[in-house]
Amino acid sequence: MAKLKLVAEPDKHEIRMWRDFEAPRELVFKAFTDPTLVPKWWGPYEVTTTVDQMDVRKGGIWRYVQRDDSGNEYGFSGVYHEVVSPERLVFTFEFEGLPGHVLLETVTFEEHDGKTRMIDSSIFQTVEDRDGMIQSGMERGAAASWDRFEELLKTL
Amino acid sequence: MAKLKLVAEPDKHEIRMWRDFEAPRELVFKAFTDPTLVPKWWGPYEVTTTVDQMDVRKGGIWRYVQRDDSGNEYGFSGVYHEVVSPERLVFTFEFEGLPGHVLLETVTFEEHDGKTRMIDSSIFQTVEDRDGMIQSGMERGAAASWDRFEELLKTL
Repeated sequence: MAKLKLVAEPDKHEIRMWRDFEAPRELVFKAFTDPTLVPKWWGPYEVTTTVDQMDVRKGGIWRYVQRDDSGNEYGFSGVYHEVVSPERLVFTFEFEGLPGHVLLETVTFEEHDGKTRMIDSSIFQTVEDRDGMIQSGMERGAAASWDRFEELLKTL
Repeated sequence: MAKLKLVAEPDKHEIRMWRDFEAPRELVFKAFTDPTLVPKWWGPYEVTTTVDQMDVRKGGIWRYVQRDDSGNEYGFSGVYHEVVSPERLVFTFEFEGLPGHVLLETVTFEEHDGKTRMIDSSIFQTVEDRDGMIQSGMERGAAASWDRFEELLKTL
């Protein structure tokens, strides 16, 4: 199974991740943008995620809440700035525990021979914010999400 | 008169601009976020700007329209992601003629001895987008806007 690739060059504002999925991009895009499916793949295995809002259109808001075993809740939210099905999403992302630290995320879906490469570029306000996100263990969290996403795709 | 400073390091996603204004930051912040004042300073001298929407609060939308002498209209819009008066604004920025190319702008207002340093950091989705913005003459446009903004401050 192809795993997540992640690149974060020194002293840059970007984290770039990508992975190939064995599915056509219409299906990958649909799965990625379906509010009923988000709880099945978003975030690491040990938390539960609920979708509070997810209005996948330009100007629409998304908001997810993660709950851990101890009952702690963590909110994540943003605004969709571009939705071009099945090619591209642009949205902002904010962890509500760290208000005002916003990142701009662009997810691109490229199909080659029936497989889909999903490319996720996150741009941070500062290099320090980006490095902080990496140190917080985001690679492990993202890898788990994308593993879960692949498992989900196989069931669709 | 202190002029606009602009830094765009090679191969980075950011454009950083700053300038000192001879006014307390409460006034600078208020002028910057007042919809009735935006037409007096936003954009170069030779165009007219009207505010279509400007809801300065987290999640609020802004949209300005520029008209040139030939009657061409150009729309610019975005969403406020953080509003901390009189310290900081975070918002997205999109030129509607180039949809899907979004930038994330953070404006910080720092007061020192009654003067205010306004620092504007724009983060682009790609280095190419950033370089394209520079090549489009944004420095001239920004310098004119900030000159007009200083003139406006003197009248308040």
